[in-house]
Amino acid sequence: MLGRVASTSLLPPTIRQLLSNTSNSARVQVNGWVKSVRRQKNVTFAVISDGSSAKGIQAVIQNGSLAKVLTNGASVRLGGTLGDSPGKGQDKELRVEEVEVVGECDPAAYPIQKQALPVDYLRDNCHFRARTNTIAEMLRLRATASDALQQFFNSLGFCYVHTPIITSSDCEGAGETFRVAPPEPSEPATHPTENKPSEFFGHPAYLTVSSQLHLEALATALSRVYTISPSFRAERSLTNRHLSEFWMLEAEWSFTQSVNDICAVTEGAIKDVLSKTQPHAQVFAQATGRSRILEHLQTASSTPVWTRLSYGDAVAELAKYHASARKFHFEPAWGKPLQSEHERWLAEELVKGPVFVTDYPVALKPFYMRLNDDGKTVACFDLLVPHLGELVGGSLREERSNLLDKALESHGLDKTQYGWYSELRKYGGAPHGGFGLGFERLISWISGIENVRECIAMPRWAGRMLL
Amino acid sequence: MLGRVASTSLLPPTIRQLLSNTSNSARVQVNGWVKSVRRQKNVTFAVISDGSSAKGIQAVIQNGSLAKVLTNGASVRLGGTLGDSPGKGQDKELRVEEVEVVGECDPAAYPIQKQALPVDYLRDNCHFRARTNTIAEMLRLRATASDALQQFFNSLGFCYVHTPIITSSDCEGAGETFRVAPPEPSEPATHPTENKPSEFFGHPAYLTVSSQLHLEALATALSRVYTISPSFRAERSLTNRHLSEFWMLEAEWSFTQSVNDICAVTEGAIKDVLSKTQPHAQVFAQATGRSRILEHLQTASSTPVWTRLSYGDAVAELAKYHASARKFHFEPAWGKPLQSEHERWLAEELVKGPVFVTDYPVALKPFYMRLNDDGKTVACFDLLVPHLGELVGGSLREERSNLLDKALESHGLDKTQYGWYSELRKYGGAPHGGFGLGFERLISWISGIENVRECIAMPRWAGRMLL
Repeated sequence: MLGRVASTSLLPPTIRQLLSNTSNSARVQVNGWVKSVRRQKNVTFAVISDGSSAKGIQAVIQNGSLAKVLTNGASVRLGGTLGDSPGKGQDKELRVEEVEVVGECDPAAYPIQKQALPVDYLRDNCHFRARTNTIAEMLRLRATASDALQQFFNSLGFCYVHTPIITSSDCEGAGETFRVAPPEPSEPATHPTENKPSEFFGHPAYLTVSSQLHLEALATALSRVYTISPSFRAERSLTNRHLSEFWMLEAEWSFTQSVNDICAVTEGAIKDVLSKTQPHAQVFAQATGRSRILEHLQTASSTPVWTRLSYGDAVAELAKYHASARKFHFEPAWGKPLQSEHERWLAEELVKGPVFVTDYPVALKPFYMRLNDDGKTVACFDLLVPHLGELVGGSLREERSNLLDKALESHGLDKTQYGWYSELRKYGGAPHGGFGLGFERLISWISGIENVRECIAMPRWAGRMLL
Repeated sequence: MLGRVASTSLLPPTIRQLLSNTSNSARVQVNGWVKSVRRQKNVTFAVISDGSSAKGIQAVIQNGSLAKVLTNGASVRLGGTLGDSPGKGQDKELRVEEVEVVGECDPAAYPIQKQALPVDYLRDNCHFRARTNTIAEMLRLRATASDALQQFFNSLGFCYVHTPIITSSDCEGAGETFRVAPPEPSEPATHPTENKPSEFFGHPAYLTVSSQLHLEALATALSRVYTISPSFRAERSLTNRHLSEFWMLEAEWSFTQSVNDICAVTEGAIKDVLSKTQPHAQVFAQATGRSRILEHLQTASSTPVWTRLSYGDAVAELAKYHASARKFHFEPAWGKPLQSEHERWLAEELVKGPVFVTDYPVALKPFYMRLNDDGKTVACFDLLVPHLGELVGGSLREERSNLLDKALESHGLDKTQYGWYSELRKYGGAPHGGFGLGFERLISWISGIENVRECIAMPRWAGRMLL
């Protein structure tokens, strides 16, 4: 097509692009923020970062009057030449000939000081938080992981779709769903009912807790669909695994008939992400000195096929261990949920790697999961990984109308509300299944950052929502 | 890395992959839905689609008893061989040897009949709508466009980020912002204030109307950021351009100092999308017979640099035309907003192609746009395109603290609420700018689908929200 603008010429190169592309002695301009300044007698070294890579670029300034204006946090434009660096820690350096401060930063008042800052302080300074090495690298990791997932699913013929955020489903009435209300009326209502929060759409509106049901509707037309979408839970529990607003990758596809196949796609997707995010994982491991995280990831990557273990077998293993060692707070027993301590033991001690636990009892799982022939379990899995616990949940979906109706009934759900969902089965329904992967949990697993509040740009949880 | 699963072997090929990859005479299995059946004396032709491409595959069934079970809408699994098709309209066909109906579909009751269905009917049957050719192709177009935008920005060193959906900003108090409320209490409150909708986070919470301010915070750390994110407006106006829930591409980057540069990036992004979505545009043009849409797109693609026109010059041209022809309902005048009729005339008649209208009067635009040296206009643009009107809005952002404070004041905004936003300027602020592109409008422009309600999978507007 004529007239297409060559995209690479639209903006000057980032520091990352400069360091990977430009040959030495080239005259370059670098835009970025001063991350540190080290003044020596005849020369000043400054690290300049534009956020495009973990390291930034080392700037060498011989001219004392030029160096004088550089302070931590200031945004600057430097002109100079690239050359091989004799120093440790970088291949190239910028020999500075011109300095322009485009945005000053009072080093005494700057909220982001060079020393490590407490997480709570950074959460309170959410608008500055991405200027720290950890959060910036986490954001780059998110972008790489998201891109890896998209490429993986695109290559399998999946269609990337946007599912609705505002929904009429309050998801099983669990009471943890945010409501959406129209703008506040300027005049107070005479009768409270006159301004019911749900009036805007004519009936109650909620924020989605999962895109799955909507994906199922699209999978009966496009066969293979996925999304990376925000989800919402008005949970009041304040753990390091929960956010009020979080992102999920959810994939759904038709014509699949075994949980094992869904596990295989899940495993393929995650292994692809691990491969493509390895450089980020290394940055985190180097920064924290925690090589154990890297070992977990390498084990997961190099295991040819991750272990599959039925819930029944998992409970038997847990019970055997508990009988001998009495290490669990909760006694493992068939029919009871797996507790966090159980999940971690399975992944970290028994399997020593990721493990798919499959075929849970029907009573422990949502209405839409496909009943197995035993009549007691459903065709589902949870993927448990060392150091984290549950990362993914997936299942075949009940495609048989009569069994779906029974499941709705036994879960005490309103059949009319799910009428459209049942109809998908009545007209050309196909066996299908899928899974949901908590995106912040994935980031936590790869980075070793323990709290998901540091795995998203601007976290929201009960009682806290800045910006 | 060891043990990585070859993704292509994880699932059987889609029809699209089959038709583009497999050599003839290969034994294949096809999963999909029956789109049409044509029975002749000795042979039956059926079109089978799995949603992976616009055309589907032609299945040829010689065996009458096999053909009998095929009905419109049923989901089927067909076994056979691929061969060159002697018929018109396709290169290859599937010679069927085995037929399995995996999901029946009563042809009389099936809500998606073969003939063209009214849009309102399809909106009411939102869960089935993606089974129509138009909506399925629209969804594939969305995926291609989204992917093209991501590749474009990634290549320029932008970082893809997820900005928050729940926000504390009610965006200038325009009264079109949805509120977010915690779950309804099981007991009615004795005093209405006891259950203030905002209590969950400790202060009022809203659904975002734009990611821009959040992107600006991230652009002071990562330099170049973008997102494709849902946005929300509780607008009660029922036009074919407005949805309550819509998607926007928003990009923001530091160290840019001219509106012209922002226009260039915008133009580059859209030209890339036009190039990569051309096959979809052709499908739509063929289906509707409206080649005029294609011509608009080709003009846009082949124009080396899209016209830039200042608001002042645009108004002068409009006034000149109006003085001679008196064709406008609203008289054009400096200081007044451009009306839809003005925008379309500029793009369709004056420029006959996309046009960036720049430097609007300060009173017409939001507080955050950068004041020009004339003190009367701001450094901004609207991109107007033929057949649609406004597609993109962008600007430099006011990076000078004192001028930003004045702008907040003159717009009657609460300075304390924007304290964090002002702080971004005080500590290493940099000149920066960006733009927002309405994703459904882009899809409308490329497809020629006039109403944005048909440019998203599950549309929401005042009074209407299904699923």
